[in-house]
Amino acid sequence: MRLALVGFGNVGRRFAELLRGPYGRILRRAGVEARVTGIATARHGSAIDARGLSLSRCLRAKSLHPLNRERPIGSTLDFIRRVPADVLLELTTLDPKRGLPAVRHARAALERGLDVITANKGPAACELRPLLALAGRKRRRFLFEGAVMDGTPVFNLVARCLPGVRVLGFRGMLNTTTARILSGMENGTSFEDSLAEMQDEGIAEADPRNDVDGWDAAAKGCAIANALMKAETRPTLVDRVGISEVTADDVRTALRMRTRIRLIVRGERDGRKVSVRVAPEALPLDDPLVASEQDGVLILETDLMGEIGILEGPSGVDQTAYAILSDLMALIESGALLR
Amino acid sequence: MRLALVGFGNVGRRFAELLRGPYGRILRRAGVEARVTGIATARHGSAIDARGLSLSRCLRAKSLHPLNRERPIGSTLDFIRRVPADVLLELTTLDPKRGLPAVRHARAALERGLDVITANKGPAACELRPLLALAGRKRRRFLFEGAVMDGTPVFNLVARCLPGVRVLGFRGMLNTTTARILSGMENGTSFEDSLAEMQDEGIAEADPRNDVDGWDAAAKGCAIANALMKAETRPTLVDRVGISEVTADDVRTALRMRTRIRLIVRGERDGRKVSVRVAPEALPLDDPLVASEQDGVLILETDLMGEIGILEGPSGVDQTAYAILSDLMALIESGALLR
Repeated sequence: MRLALVGFGNVGRRFAELLRGPYGRILRRAGVEARVTGIATARHGSAIDARGLSLSRCLRAKSLHPLNRERPIGSTLDFIRRVPADVLLELTTLDPKRGLPAVRHARAALERGLDVITANKGPAACELRPLLALAGRKRRRFLFEGAVMDGTPVFNLVARCLPGVRVLGFRGMLNTTTARILSGMENGTSFEDSLAEMQDEGIAEADPRNDVDGWDAAAKGCAIANALMKAETRPTLVDRVGISEVTADDVRTALRMRTRIRLIVRGERDGRKVSVRVAPEALPLDDPLVASEQDGVLILETDLMGEIGILEGPSGVDQTAYAILSDLMALIESGALLR
Repeated sequence: MRLALVGFGNVGRRFAELLRGPYGRILRRAGVEARVTGIATARHGSAIDARGLSLSRCLRAKSLHPLNRERPIGSTLDFIRRVPADVLLELTTLDPKRGLPAVRHARAALERGLDVITANKGPAACELRPLLALAGRKRRRFLFEGAVMDGTPVFNLVARCLPGVRVLGFRGMLNTTTARILSGMENGTSFEDSLAEMQDEGIAEADPRNDVDGWDAAAKGCAIANALMKAETRPTLVDRVGISEVTADDVRTALRMRTRIRLIVRGERDGRKVSVRVAPEALPLDDPLVASEQDGVLILETDLMGEIGILEGPSGVDQTAYAILSDLMALIESGALLR
């Protein structure tokens, strides 16, 4: 199984490290020897080697260019068209409003007849129906378990463990950066200090607007609505309120009323339309959505099973890398290699 | 697909009702027409009809005997040996300490070459390794998703959505009867009054010792340890403390320290041995295990994915019936019918 990586940041590098260890062993037990035949990056060069790149050299290299065994690689789209691969792993950083450039990469790879796995929420949030239709026409798979809650099963949970169940709606606390800011305010730390602390720890991005203004939560909500409720929505259509106007006073008043304010995303069906909303809400202390600021929690409301929740503990790059492995295993089990 | 039911109480009857409606449609979409060829009960007679019993008549009948089309049926084991079926659905009520009579029924059906699905925790809690070994020898499946948290995926979650992941340990709040008693005590209701209220509602059993003394939690813990951590334990080996000695004073003191007392089950590996413990514990208010007394919560500690939690909202007989459907679908997908 020949893998091509687009993006070689924290997630791509961690995936490569684990592919040399436990992930490689898991794939071999499933009868698959995986090799990475190409890596494209925006700022550290790109390389293609049909016999398989040395991952240890890729992980050490400042630029990938010297490892390239083919004629020089132009744009990322040029890479996607040329790389000798079976599966494209789309691991770039994202504009959550429009899903770019991930959508463009996924589309180009599917057009060419590759299976596509992404750890990005963009494609599922912005363009899921067209991408699934394209994959269907090409008899390829488009998988995106990492779009929401990293490798914690959300999409696979419904597809593989809840046969026949319809998702009627959902509510989630899916953005831990805002949860930590709000939790800090409960304890007297200012909005700005909490944010600066997380930026120091590398948890929050330098530009916090994706989190604070609710774009991240909106994109995750759209991915869930599109994938599990057959919606055709996108982040720009979400009724979205961020947390920038929540004051320390609001947070303390909520606590006095035995509630906590968190940035909550909800999806519900209204006739044929599915709407996604993101807003700060004061929820009772015993709601699982507000239990811990470190955990992401998603509650699915279903027809046959009532409420089912899934919870992701404190997470980092390992959990995102696992999403890719779990999609690779789904690809293998679906017989993608037997075509 | 010919189904035989052993036990026709609340769960069996609800399954039969749903089989006439949504479950039947889900199975037909998967290419399977299911018919019930036999039902055995302890006190309301038994019936076998190779052409398929009329479920509406079974649901209305006071005794099943008049519906029997074969020679008179003796014991349940006689029924299991004779019923013309592909799958046995084991739905009896349970002695959680020894897993009887469910273990005996499962064994007899596997010996005869039937696939077995149980909604009982007994077989998985008391005899999982021998039953799986027997199923392996007979090339049949033994499935038990309903043993813990009803139809909420626990065993299928790990088997189907977390490939390669090892479960290192777990903690759970899996008994909502004790949670409601303790929560009532937080609000000033006595132990006895809470219990009586739940008995009136039909939530707690007339004999509350299975819940209060921790046998129910111990059996669920053993099922999880045996299935997900390859343990070979059983409820009588569990280090088990119930909640009967928890006082109103204890509960209020815990609350003042911003904790709540709940009956918690934990599993952990100690070298080659896996130990399961059940005891009342005071956990911080922001622990997902104590969030709501209505929800069952299980947190798995894993090697590759850190902590993953699964939550079941308020549940009843529908959720247990769904466990059987989900195991039937797993059986169908595993190609059991193609043998």
